[in-house]
Amino acid sequence: MRTFEDYQKQLAKMKPNIYIGGEKVGRTDERFQGGARIIKETYDRAQDPRYEDLCTATSHLTGEKINRFTHVHRSIDDLLKKQEMTRVLCHLCGGCIQRCMGIDAINALDVVTYEIDRATGSDYHARFEKYLRYFQENDLVASCAQTDVKGDRLRRPHEQVDPDMYLRIVENRSDGIVVRGAKNCITNTAYADEIIAIPTRFMTDKDSDYAVAFAVPSDWDGVKILARPANPHRRKHLNAPIAEIGDVESFIIFDDAFVPNDRVFLNGKLDPRQTPFAGFLALLFANYHRHSYTGCKPATSEVIASAAALAAEYNGIEREPHVKEKISHIIGLAELCYAAGQMSAYRAECSPSGTYIPDEILTNAARKLAGEEIYNEYKIMADLAGGLSASLPFEDEFFAKETAELANKYIKRNPKISSENIHRCFRGIENLVSSDITSVMQVAGLHGGGSPQMETITMMSRYDLEPLKGVAKYLFGIEKEPPRYKRANVTPRQMLQKFAKFTPKRVNPDL
Amino acid sequence: MRTFEDYQKQLAKMKPNIYIGGEKVGRTDERFQGGARIIKETYDRAQDPRYEDLCTATSHLTGEKINRFTHVHRSIDDLLKKQEMTRVLCHLCGGCIQRCMGIDAINALDVVTYEIDRATGSDYHARFEKYLRYFQENDLVASCAQTDVKGDRLRRPHEQVDPDMYLRIVENRSDGIVVRGAKNCITNTAYADEIIAIPTRFMTDKDSDYAVAFAVPSDWDGVKILARPANPHRRKHLNAPIAEIGDVESFIIFDDAFVPNDRVFLNGKLDPRQTPFAGFLALLFANYHRHSYTGCKPATSEVIASAAALAAEYNGIEREPHVKEKISHIIGLAELCYAAGQMSAYRAECSPSGTYIPDEILTNAARKLAGEEIYNEYKIMADLAGGLSASLPFEDEFFAKETAELANKYIKRNPKISSENIHRCFRGIENLVSSDITSVMQVAGLHGGGSPQMETITMMSRYDLEPLKGVAKYLFGIEKEPPRYKRANVTPRQMLQKFAKFTPKRVNPDL
Amino acid sequence: MRTFEDYQKQLAKMKPNIYIGGEKVGRTDERFQGGARIIKETYDRAQDPRYEDLCTATSHLTGEKINRFTHVHRSIDDLLKKQEMTRVLCHLCGGCIQRCMGIDAINALDVVTYEIDRATGSDYHARFEKYLRYFQENDLVASCAQTDVKGDRLRRPHEQVDPDMYLRIVENRSDGIVVRGAKNCITNTAYADEIIAIPTRFMTDKDSDYAVAFAVPSDWDGVKILARPANPHRRKHLNAPIAEIGDVESFIIFDDAFVPNDRVFLNGKLDPRQTPFAGFLALLFANYHRHSYTGCKPATSEVIASAAALAAEYNGIEREPHVKEKISHIIGLAELCYAAGQMSAYRAECSPSGTYIPDEILTNAARKLAGEEIYNEYKIMADLAGGLSASLPFEDEFFAKETAELANKYIKRNPKISSENIHRCFRGIENLVSSDITSVMQVAGLHGGGSPQMETITMMSRYDLEPLKGVAKYLFGIEKEPPRYKRANVTPRQMLQKFAKFTPKRVNPDL
Amino acid sequence: MRTFEDYQKQLAKMKPNIYIGGEKVGRTDERFQGGARIIKETYDRAQDPRYEDLCTATSHLTGEKINRFTHVHRSIDDLLKKQEMTRVLCHLCGGCIQRCMGIDAINALDVVTYEIDRATGSDYHARFEKYLRYFQENDLVASCAQTDVKGDRLRRPHEQVDPDMYLRIVENRSDGIVVRGAKNCITNTAYADEIIAIPTRFMTDKDSDYAVAFAVPSDWDGVKILARPANPHRRKHLNAPIAEIGDVESFIIFDDAFVPNDRVFLNGKLDPRQTPFAGFLALLFANYHRHSYTGCKPATSEVIASAAALAAEYNGIEREPHVKEKISHIIGLAELCYAAGQMSAYRAECSPSGTYIPDEILTNAARKLAGEEIYNEYKIMADLAGGLSASLPFEDEFFAKETAELANKYIKRNPKISSENIHRCFRGIENLVSSDITSVMQVAGLHGGGSPQMETITMMSRYDLEPLKGVAKYLFGIEKEPPRYKRANVTPRQMLQKFAKFTPKRVNPDL
Repeated sequence: MRTFEDYQKQLAKMKPNIYIGGEKVGRTDERFQGGARIIKETYDRAQDPRYEDLCTATSHLTGEKINRFTHVHRSIDDLLKKQEMTRVLCHLCGGCIQRCMGIDAINALDVVTYEIDRATGSDYHARFEKYLRYFQENDLVASCAQTDVKGDRLRRPHEQVDPDMYLRIVENRSDGIVVRGAKNCITNTAYADEIIAIPTRFMTDKDSDYAVAFAVPSDWDGVKILARPANPHRRKHLNAPIAEIGDVESFIIFDDAFVPNDRVFLNGKLDPRQTPFAGFLALLFANYHRHSYTGCKPATSEVIASAAALAAEYNGIEREPHVKEKISHIIGLAELCYAAGQMSAYRAECSPSGTYIPDEILTNAARKLAGEEIYNEYKIMADLAGGLSASLPFEDEFFAKETAELANKYIKRNPKISSENIHRCFRGIENLVSSDITSVMQVAGLHGGGSPQMETITMMSRYDLEPLKGVAKYLFGIEKEPPRYKRANVTPRQMLQKFAKFTPKRVNPDL
Repeated sequence: MRTFEDYQKQLAKMKPNIYIGGEKVGRTDERFQGGARIIKETYDRAQDPRYEDLCTATSHLTGEKINRFTHVHRSIDDLLKKQEMTRVLCHLCGGCIQRCMGIDAINALDVVTYEIDRATGSDYHARFEKYLRYFQENDLVASCAQTDVKGDRLRRPHEQVDPDMYLRIVENRSDGIVVRGAKNCITNTAYADEIIAIPTRFMTDKDSDYAVAFAVPSDWDGVKILARPANPHRRKHLNAPIAEIGDVESFIIFDDAFVPNDRVFLNGKLDPRQTPFAGFLALLFANYHRHSYTGCKPATSEVIASAAALAAEYNGIEREPHVKEKISHIIGLAELCYAAGQMSAYRAECSPSGTYIPDEILTNAARKLAGEEIYNEYKIMADLAGGLSASLPFEDEFFAKETAELANKYIKRNPKISSENIHRCFRGIENLVSSDITSVMQVAGLHGGGSPQMETITMMSRYDLEPLKGVAKYLFGIEKEPPRYKRANVTPRQMLQKFAKFTPKRVNPDL
Repeated sequence: MRTFEDYQKQLAKMKPNIYIGGEKVGRTDERFQGGARIIKETYDRAQDPRYEDLCTATSHLTGEKINRFTHVHRSIDDLLKKQEMTRVLCHLCGGCIQRCMGIDAINALDVVTYEIDRATGSDYHARFEKYLRYFQENDLVASCAQTDVKGDRLRRPHEQVDPDMYLRIVENRSDGIVVRGAKNCITNTAYADEIIAIPTRFMTDKDSDYAVAFAVPSDWDGVKILARPANPHRRKHLNAPIAEIGDVESFIIFDDAFVPNDRVFLNGKLDPRQTPFAGFLALLFANYHRHSYTGCKPATSEVIASAAALAAEYNGIEREPHVKEKISHIIGLAELCYAAGQMSAYRAECSPSGTYIPDEILTNAARKLAGEEIYNEYKIMADLAGGLSASLPFEDEFFAKETAELANKYIKRNPKISSENIHRCFRGIENLVSSDITSVMQVAGLHGGGSPQMETITMMSRYDLEPLKGVAKYLFGIEKEPPRYKRANVTPRQMLQKFAKFTPKRVNPDL
Repeated sequence: MRTFEDYQKQLAKMKPNIYIGGEKVGRTDERFQGGARIIKETYDRAQDPRYEDLCTATSHLTGEKINRFTHVHRSIDDLLKKQEMTRVLCHLCGGCIQRCMGIDAINALDVVTYEIDRATGSDYHARFEKYLRYFQENDLVASCAQTDVKGDRLRRPHEQVDPDMYLRIVENRSDGIVVRGAKNCITNTAYADEIIAIPTRFMTDKDSDYAVAFAVPSDWDGVKILARPANPHRRKHLNAPIAEIGDVESFIIFDDAFVPNDRVFLNGKLDPRQTPFAGFLALLFANYHRHSYTGCKPATSEVIASAAALAAEYNGIEREPHVKEKISHIIGLAELCYAAGQMSAYRAECSPSGTYIPDEILTNAARKLAGEEIYNEYKIMADLAGGLSASLPFEDEFFAKETAELANKYIKRNPKISSENIHRCFRGIENLVSSDITSVMQVAGLHGGGSPQMETITMMSRYDLEPLKGVAKYLFGIEKEPPRYKRANVTPRQMLQKFAKFTPKRVNPDL
């Protein structure tokens, strides 16, 4: 396993292909350090005895101890540990841990490449396992590039006026493929080792050129990254973890980039029988990613509830019934969302590749509820913290000669709490509520991993309404037989069967 | 195990002590048959091979096969099966299965009588086990009488102007106790074999007389039951399960009733050291009951979603996006609530009596969300079914000579569905939406087992906010140490420790 | 003006053509008396000096004093008075006053018949004014039959498999028309003098046969009424207005009924140029009706808030913050909805016929909000009243020898309030929350006058989004000119211009 | 009337007493120019013939034409025009117009100083009118400093450990007063001519020292301003109004500042009979300010709806039903809120000073609804605009040589819209959604002018629940008399009567 220092050294060696404000910059640019600071938790905690059990795993390929973020889930326990690790690390950085994209992408690829081989006789799974071994051994950070720019939203890829609105293979060569297109709204690319590109939707027969998945180093030739950093306001005097983090969103352009064969994991242009697997891969990544959200969303809610509860204590109102009601609302949501993620692990199915797939109805139902509530949670935090969360004077005023004494005098509330701690509390809330990164957290809380609308669609495409209607038909006397009494959703098992010819194994047949 | 016929014969023998409309009536009164019809499912399905595994269990006292509704949970699997049984049987009667009160009361008493003995050296647990053996062998239906009439809501029991506003022991005799008071909003008493009375709240030292729990046959001397039946509109022509059910709510008066010692399970008047166990018993019953709600509330939501989906199909609008969004909303809630109940079983703790207690935070969070949404679910059903759900002509009009042909002609919608089935669909929805029993379902959906306000209070009294605030304190630099990374709620283990001197065993130490 | 007694005598003379439970019954049937009791308020209050100013008006046709429910709005003040009358009378009967359908229908017909004449050279307005004079002189109650049974919801009238799914003209005769079809979900028909039938939607050229409006006495040949009464539980001992009211919903079948020419107000089959006026009439009635809802919905909300506040007082919890928050929520909605109705009157336009049309955006926005909140209001009432609202023992138990003393003892709460008044309070709430009529109030609160979905569609078809987008275009630098600063909705003026060739007069040009 | 240039020249002359980042800066600091840009609209539009009627008024003191922002409302029309001006100018700067604080403060002082004189025989009204004349003639911008820092929220001013937690008079001198304390969360002070300080709450007899109101120039001796600017990201290439604006929130410290008598308008330390007027002034300012919110909140909602609708068009999804539903939700709220403000003007009462006071129930109900919905509106905007609203690459990337072509190619959506306009649209939305000023808009939308909780309290303290309960008492048979049929709120008339001995005149006695 790498250390954070190794990771940083590696980043420093990469070719500059990132653009900010009209300039091409390297990976050591100051504006990326907040993001790297978050990744640091994933390296440091894997070496920290208190977190080691959560943050490391044993590779099923090599038997070596690896960072859990490079692991493929081979059991229910793996899914539970991944979820818990996500929650715990998000607590430590006040929100998104950013490295889940990699683990979610490799899990989806592990399942799908196996299926492609069984359906078409190819050897993509071996290719992928070779790549995975490299990924694990080098303890890499990956960015998963899924969301295409999409052009006209109501047209399919091949119907667009400009055919490049979805990432596509423009040429098949003997040694690899040439790809063109752009992915946007991608987190962490500016400080990731690798970019793993996967499709964003189902592809029809006419969209075969768009059925493509591959991995490249993030400074690869032909890859251009337009980066948008967002940071909380930095501190001079009162250092705190919440002020050190950051986010960088990327608009990644593949400008006729060449990808060698051993890094290509789906190619509908070469073999159209692979085309339907584009949608399967898209949904499977989404499922793993939404399962990760059952770890990070509760943590985000808890960070918000925690800050709100602390502000309420410092404001002296923590015993007011409306305060309790509001905080309990957030906590209840966090608990339900986390429990849904745990149950989706208990109900997981084992794919033929041996990798476990969590229950899709639950991952979607949980992500949907969390997404619908994120703005309300910010509202509650601002409500309980008060107007100061957006109007707190800058940090210097609390330290400068002419103003320090007055500023510290007048920020005082609960007499038992020092001015410095009250200041720290509202400075921290200001970081959460009132800076560039706030918007990223809000919008990502709504859209990241798919917006509530997408989860509704996914949930309802998996959920079989006919047996549900059977309940009413029986009760209303339209059908005589009682409804069958198991929930009737389409399981990963059945979803897989659409694409290949075998059946994953039910882990807990009774759930 | 009894059959439904045995149960009915037994009811027929009971003394009349039920009052409706100014008259004293027996248990065979027509107005109670809808309720008994629901209880029928609990007897019939225990004998039905398709449901036997769910609906029966093995007594830990006798090793005999018993109806699961008389069973005490000795494992996680018992909790999971009880939850699933509840959901499945609720599907079969379109809502509340009504017999959960008994199982929830005996589980709470099993845990608490054991604790009382350990704290005070008494032998209540043996008493209770003797009663439980009788209860299991005779396969009894119990009504749990918890909610006192409460008088002035802001005063404690001993502060009331009339001291009888909470059920109390007015006399301790050598052979038993004399009790006075009333319990209201109690389901199923009119066709239950037994009434199990337990406290409704915590009791202070001054409230010792009110710390009382016991069981009596429901036709016991000194017990008067004011019953309020509520039924859907009955049918003449188109029979259907949904039209056969019913509910009876009771206002139970204990008019100086004598209870012999072997049926007394808590007596703070005799031994004030028992007084604090009143609150523990109240909360523990609530916890088991809210766990039962994680079975019945998803089922109720699914009945509603099922009816709404069927109406949408028959109205020809099932593919409209707003219809899918509304139905998916209900389904998502049902899934989250059910998953929370399952996880609360996985996180159960084993009490010293050997009986399992589900996680309280989750049972409360799930019940709270379900309670908050029940009116919204009715709104969605009425929305998708349309105005006819409250304005459908009576059944006869569809069969009487002068009107049948016209009524059946004009109710036609989706041309593929027969008039009769369309009629059945809207008649069924009318039963759900537009009759006396509707209000009971709505109000019970909100208040039954405790209103959302109560769940907020319970949840927040279990949830330890200080470690949660630790997250913000760490992030804001107020504390240097990272927060401890387990959820920090007060477990049943810790709750028990308040009352007795030992520790339940964690079943899954990692959850 | 008639008295209530005159009205009743008139009803008694009508031919029986109403079917309940397979029998044909007359207008004096006991089951209709609850509805008639509501209509009584509209007669009695017109004679009551305290309400006379609100409940009477001066006919613009005859200069005579008439009941306001037969009046056509000739000024802003008329609209304001109608709204206030509606609110006040709804307070007196605990909900829907039921006679608004007539006034809303005659206002819409007054405007539209005038327009038809101007567009086609016909003389329908004179016909209508003759009818209106008769209507006013005889102080008639009208039921407006708008909602067709509609068959397959996704097909237009002429596309249905059975062409009778929308009311249509099957034959034009020299002396009148023959109509066939059915209208459902119609309030008050069983005790109305007249049925006024109008279209339910826009009609295309191919739907000309369905562009029809007319009035007939409600016992007319060929008219069959399938009636569904819904009443609160009646009282024996504690009489109260809330227990006396009732509702009857009708499914009205026009079984080849003949309508003489002087009662026909729209006939697309005779003159296809009239066809587009079907949609105009449908929307205009909806607009007047939604304006009436800005009177009755605040009243309904206030009845609910009033009952909830009284229960809170009697329960002793009225000073609890959550109680205030919940009641203030309902009150705030009522106030906003009422104010919107008042402003829609202030912004009214005067149609060429001289009749005033309230602002459509506001009537729709207000009705939409009210409809979305109705279930939530019931939830709040049940929340604050508690479980007793659905489980109160029957009235007799509080008076019968064996139970009266105990029942009255145990219902006691706030010691300052007598048992009788506490009983009255919960008996009243039980009438509101737990009886057949509850469902009608809930479903009508959602769907009556058009569901929130319909108001969204209407609102957005009137609201011109392009000028709104102009705000963003200006702010974003896409357009240099500032947006025009008046709200840019399509006014009745513009709506009228689609159908005829002139312009209504703006009453308040600045609003 | 001044021009914007005059205003700026005046600012440039002021003494530096503003602190940012540890430095003392002057009013011409670059970071204040976004705020001044907003104030510019209030000067420019007063000179613009298209807006002149709205933005100017005639002084009741001098008969001169003045900027409406310095005017005291002498009629219903004045209130309506102020509301409309607010809405229109907010459209032009994409949110808060910031100058309303001044007009709201002078209106409240005009009413209250008159009342103080009548109650105590003082001459404060003449003092105030002299100040008002100066204010109007110099066309001044005022910041209203109301919100005290408040220390421990559960203690009254005199109970605080540090007595300076609320602004207080520390010394009465013959020529004036010396004040000490701090006000926070104050908008616009950094570019305002004047600070008008008023109390934040009711004051008891023991809080007389805290009953103080006065005006001083914002660079007055002893006044220190800790300023926090928040701006959208500025542009280099695509200029647009939305990118030019800004906000500055201030923490204002009165460090033993001397205020001469002719600028003191309330002094409870000098004459304790004035103390109760502190609360009256606080509430009256809040009422005027909430009435201003009925202009700015609809405008803010419309800006959001406008941007969301434009993004939906450019994304090609504007005809999707869920898009229409979401946009109509915002529009409906805006319309209801605006109509409530208009009706509160129509229902205004004329205070004895001749100044009009809008209806308090409506201003509070409208502000409450708007405050509760602001986060939901941002959610809808982010929902319809998509993830790009928080991840759009920086502006330079669309113009720099290496990236411009690619960036403009891949941002393309609706093929009919140029890349530049699509870029402008998302750049504008990014300004709204993703920058420092976003948080200020969100938090101000919730808390500005009082949070929903405050409006609930104010509304319920004005609304007389007893007559409302009369509705239920009548319906339930507890009282025989029908309820009185006017809404029973405490009017400004009655509120005034608490403080002084006369009655304002009802303007529209029937509303």
